[in-house]
Amino acid sequence: MHAIAPELQVAAWLNTSQPLSLGQLRGKVVAVYAFQMLCPGCVSHGIPQAKTIRSTFDEQDVAVIGLHSVFEHHDVMTAKALEAFVHEYRIQFPVAIDQPAPRGAVPLTMEQYRLRGTPTLLLIDRQGRLRLNHFGRADDMQVGAVIGRLLAEPLAQQEVHCDDTACSIR
Amino acid sequence: MHAIAPELQVAAWLNTSQPLSLGQLRGKVVAVYAFQMLCPGCVSHGIPQAKTIRSTFDEQDVAVIGLHSVFEHHDVMTAKALEAFVHEYRIQFPVAIDQPAPRGAVPLTMEQYRLRGTPTLLLIDRQGRLRLNHFGRADDMQVGAVIGRLLAEPLAQQEVHCDDTACSIR
Amino acid sequence: MHAIAPELQVAAWLNTSQPLSLGQLRGKVVAVYAFQMLCPGCVSHGIPQAKTIRSTFDEQDVAVIGLHSVFEHHDVMTAKALEAFVHEYRIQFPVAIDQPAPRGAVPLTMEQYRLRGTPTLLLIDRQGRLRLNHFGRADDMQVGAVIGRLLAEPLAQQEVHCDDTACSIR
Amino acid sequence: MHAIAPELQVAAWLNTSQPLSLGQLRGKVVAVYAFQMLCPGCVSHGIPQAKTIRSTFDEQDVAVIGLHSVFEHHDVMTAKALEAFVHEYRIQFPVAIDQPAPRGAVPLTMEQYRLRGTPTLLLIDRQGRLRLNHFGRADDMQVGAVIGRLLAEPLAQQEVHCDDTACSIR
Repeated sequence: MHAIAPELQVAAWLNTSQPLSLGQLRGKVVAVYAFQMLCPGCVSHGIPQAKTIRSTFDEQDVAVIGLHSVFEHHDVMTAKALEAFVHEYRIQFPVAIDQPAPRGAVPLTMEQYRLRGTPTLLLIDRQGRLRLNHFGRADDMQVGAVIGRLLAEPLAQQEVHCDDTACSIR
Repeated sequence: MHAIAPELQVAAWLNTSQPLSLGQLRGKVVAVYAFQMLCPGCVSHGIPQAKTIRSTFDEQDVAVIGLHSVFEHHDVMTAKALEAFVHEYRIQFPVAIDQPAPRGAVPLTMEQYRLRGTPTLLLIDRQGRLRLNHFGRADDMQVGAVIGRLLAEPLAQQEVHCDDTACSIR
Repeated sequence: MHAIAPELQVAAWLNTSQPLSLGQLRGKVVAVYAFQMLCPGCVSHGIPQAKTIRSTFDEQDVAVIGLHSVFEHHDVMTAKALEAFVHEYRIQFPVAIDQPAPRGAVPLTMEQYRLRGTPTLLLIDRQGRLRLNHFGRADDMQVGAVIGRLLAEPLAQQEVHCDDTACSIR
Repeated sequence: MHAIAPELQVAAWLNTSQPLSLGQLRGKVVAVYAFQMLCPGCVSHGIPQAKTIRSTFDEQDVAVIGLHSVFEHHDVMTAKALEAFVHEYRIQFPVAIDQPAPRGAVPLTMEQYRLRGTPTLLLIDRQGRLRLNHFGRADDMQVGAVIGRLLAEPLAQQEVHCDDTACSIR
C-alpha cells in the first residue's frame, strides 16, 4: 500500500510556461528534487544528480521537477536570487518555489511531505503514489535502479471507481 | 525477442568453491563484467562499477561475475598474476578465466559473445536472455536503471517445454 | 621587476574582527581569491582550492583572503546573501567585499587589478609584489609550486624608505 | 644537514636509451616515485601524481623517475609484465627496476632508502640531497609546494671537499 503523493504547494514556477501538477503527470514517473540554492550538498550532489536523471531518462517516461524549499536564510534565497542561480547553473527542468508558511520557517510542501531537509529526492510512480522519500546523498546506481523498477511497473489497469450513485470501470 | 545467453566457457574459477553456470543462475539477473587486469579503463571504471553493482543489489536478486578475457599480453596476464590482482583489488565476487582459443589471441567466450574489447558489461535477465552488451564506460545511473527494469520483470511463468516424447507445461 | 600590488578596496569584511591590509601582511605570501557566490567555477573549484591553500600552509607563512568581486546579479549577491554563503560553505578565512563602483558593474579592486572574471587567484610575495594573476582553473600542484617558490625567496632585506623629509634604511 | 641520496640500484631500465644516475642529474630536482604495478594506491594515486609532476614542471628543472620496487608477488610482477603495464598506462618517463636482493623479498634500493612500502615519493634537491621520503598519499598542492621550494634554492656554489689526503674546492 503506497499513499498517493499530495500535490505540491507552489508560490511560483520557473522554466515552465504554465504550472505543473502531479495529477497531470500521472502515467510518468516523477522525480521531485527538493533543494536550497545555498545548501552545499544540494549544489555539489543534488542538482547534478537531478540533471543526470533528466539526461538519463526520456521525458516521455520520467518528469524531473526542482522544488526550492527554503527553511533558512529566507531573506537572501529570494525568487530573484533563485532565478540567477537557475540561470548560472544551467538548470533547464521546471523549478517550483515551495509556498512559504503563513508563520514559521518551513514551507508548506516541505511540511506536508515531512522532509527532513535538503537535498531530498522524492520519487512518484506512474499511478501517482509516493515510492521514495530520500534525504541526503543517494548513489546514482541506486536511484537508477529505483526509477528503472518504477518504469517497468505496469500502468494502473482498470480500476473500479465507486461514488455515491454508482460504480464504474475506468 | 531476446536470445538466450550462451554459457560462459571457462578455464578456471576464482572466488568460488565450485564452477558456476548461467543455467543454475536462472531466476536472477546476472551481470558479467569482462575485463583484463592490465586494462586501465577496467581498473579505473569497470571493476569499481562491478563492485558497486555487487553492493547495491541483493545477492538473491543479482549475481555478479567477473570474466577475465585476455586478448593481449597473454604472457603476463596469467592465472597467477590474476590471483594477485584479485587479492590486491579486494574483488570478492566470482571471477571466471575465459577459455583461451586453441589458436588466435581472442578467448572463446569473448569470441562467442563478439565482445569488442574490455571492459564490457553483459546483463542477462531472469529468464537467461542477453539484454545488454555494453563496451566501454557506462554511467552508474544507466546501469542501475537497466538492472532495476530487469528486476521488475516477472519471472517466466508457465513455459511449454517439449522434448522428444512430449510437451509439458511447467 | 614586479610591481607592488595595490591595496584592496573593500566595502566590508567578514571573518575578521578588523580590516586587513596588504601592507600589514608584508613578510607573508598572500593569496587573494576573487570569487562570486553564484559563479559555478568558484563554488566547484576556486573556494575548495582556497581552502586547500589555507590547510596546506602555515598561517605564519601564507595569508588567504577571499575577495567577493560581484560584477553581475548585484541585486541577489548582497552582503547578507554572502554571509549566509560563507556560513554554509564553512569559509573561515577573511573575506573582503570588493567596493562597488560609483557607476558601472565592475567593483573597484577588480577594476584596478584588471581581473578578467571569477575565479581569479592573485599571489603576492613577501615583499608585497604581485607575482600571479590567474583567471580560471589552476591545478593544485601548480599553485603549490608557485607558493613554494615564493616562500623560499628571502625577505627583502634592507630597503630604502623615503618620505617627505628624508630617506632611511630599515 | 641533509644526507646525499645514495645511487639507485637498478636491474634494468625502461623508457630510456641508457641508464640514468642521480649523479648525472645533479643540478635538477629529482622525483623518484617508487611503486608496484599491482598496488592499488600506486595505480590510483602514485602514478597519476608522477605524471602530474612530469607535466607541471620543465624537464630542465625536474627529473621524474619511476622505481619498480617489488616486495610481494614477485612471480607475476616480472619485467615483462611491467613492460605491458608501462605501455598500457602510457608512462613515458624513465622507469628503473629495483635490483632484487640475493635473498629476501625486499629489493636493494628499497632496502637502502628504508622505504616503508609503495607508493613512496622521494625528492632529491639540486645538490643531490634527499629532502623528502613520503610513504602513501600526498596532496598535489603539498608536493607542488615542496618542489617549488627546492627549485627556488640556489645551486650549490663552491663546496669544500675533503678526502684522506687533501681538501679541495670544486
